[in-house]
Amino acid sequence: VILINGEQRSQLDVADRGLHYGDGVFETIAVRDGKPQLWQAHMARLTEGCARLKIAEPDQQLLLNEAQQLCDDSDSAVLKIIVTRGVGGRGYRAPTTQEPTRIVANYPWPEYADDNTPYRLQFCHTPLGHNPALAGIKHLNRLEQVLARNEWSDDTIHEGLMSDCDGNVIEGVSSNLFAVRGGALLTPDVSRCGISGVMRGKVLMLAKELGIPFTITTIHRDEIVGMDGLFITNSILGIRPVAQLEQTRYRENAITTRLVEALPFALEEMA
Amino acid sequence: VILINGEQRSQLDVADRGLHYGDGVFETIAVRDGKPQLWQAHMARLTEGCARLKIAEPDQQLLLNEAQQLCDDSDSAVLKIIVTRGVGGRGYRAPTTQEPTRIVANYPWPEYADDNTPYRLQFCHTPLGHNPALAGIKHLNRLEQVLARNEWSDDTIHEGLMSDCDGNVIEGVSSNLFAVRGGALLTPDVSRCGISGVMRGKVLMLAKELGIPFTITTIHRDEIVGMDGLFITNSILGIRPVAQLEQTRYRENAITTRLVEALPFALEEMA
Repeated sequence: VILINGEQRSQLDVADRGLHYGDGVFETIAVRDGKPQLWQAHMARLTEGCARLKIAEPDQQLLLNEAQQLCDDSDSAVLKIIVTRGVGGRGYRAPTTQEPTRIVANYPWPEYADDNTPYRLQFCHTPLGHNPALAGIKHLNRLEQVLARNEWSDDTIHEGLMSDCDGNVIEGVSSNLFAVRGGALLTPDVSRCGISGVMRGKVLMLAKELGIPFTITTIHRDEIVGMDGLFITNSILGIRPVAQLEQTRYRENAITTRLVEALPFALEEMA
Repeated sequence: VILINGEQRSQLDVADRGLHYGDGVFETIAVRDGKPQLWQAHMARLTEGCARLKIAEPDQQLLLNEAQQLCDDSDSAVLKIIVTRGVGGRGYRAPTTQEPTRIVANYPWPEYADDNTPYRLQFCHTPLGHNPALAGIKHLNRLEQVLARNEWSDDTIHEGLMSDCDGNVIEGVSSNLFAVRGGALLTPDVSRCGISGVMRGKVLMLAKELGIPFTITTIHRDEIVGMDGLFITNSILGIRPVAQLEQTRYRENAITTRLVEALPFALEEMA
């Protein structure tokens, strides 16, 4: 079921700039027991994305009402919210009067999210281009992720890691990456490319609360082999430990275990 | 008037991957006297783009029929063709059975295209990210261009020049750039970012025919001031001389004049 500007519809105006230029942002939100999780954090990133692209942000209460309209009380689901600059003519210039399009869609909760098997990862070849103007926000220009995700079809590979043109690992195709080394947590800087994940932010807050030292830094592809442990995060998976990346196997480690155990309580408090 | 998969429609399935990821390519084609110009060259780039993104390319004769269906015999118009990977579910992975969406749309011929005033340009701040996997093709991830075009609203500025993160000038927001220096033609390399314009290709062919030496090279922003002349190209403008870039004024120069004069005949032969 999909709501476009509040109306139940399955069709969008073909002149929408979301189609022509990817001129918009989106959020992917976990819904448990009918409640959108980490709503405030998702809305904060949506606000940031709209501000960076100079798109008028839809009213958040309106979005929440529409989200709840799509979710039954007992539902687990994945909610996708898209906000575009709206309909426009030919050409990149934004129309002087903008009427943003808001799309709220409901997808089934995926089985893989409830199964806690550690993940097997590979490196992707498709690089992430540096673009500070777009880095961090969850915009609709996602061809790099599409190309990277389509590098493999082997279902025993759960996620691919993407690097920038300098060979620094930035993130997974649809997740953020964390590494554990010498009792500390590391996660790649996403100020030149990559997405600043909502779950990444929550894990950093949790690490701080638990007194686990962490650094937001540069991690070169060649350094990954030497890490004590890896995990990935996103709003649907939460924290997912990595068992294997290419030929390197990773064992359980104390920091990851502590974070995995503490996360549900932390999310409840934040909800 | 717009045809979506051959049907006259104004609405697109909201699940189209063109919207969700910018997962597709497009062409902007000049139509004069009802005839799409440089059709072969546009189709060659569309083929290249679809191949790079692994999207099944629509039949070119079908696209031509649809284009002609939209254009009267006497029309000047701008034709936009969009090809997306089609409808999909949530997630970057391409559906196993792909049914690409083709959109053929007709826009009015713009007045500025027939007025030959030399252009006034500025530098844009929004950088172009390097991404060899996407460079050259005319894909639907165009947020960099949207941000760059919205850096100015002064109508006396006709075009903005975009540079990569190293400060090398790559192209205009919706055009390619050429420079003249010491009797030779230079144009930026578009193998790491930028679009390989159809008109750019034709101008390079024309330079070769006319015996004008040319180089595809790196041009740093700081070198631009020292050029003898500049012009930009695209399918709608053809060749447009640049009179001014920021505070630097450029005079008419012999090479640009020769190319401007020879272009209409060359295009007729190529048509």
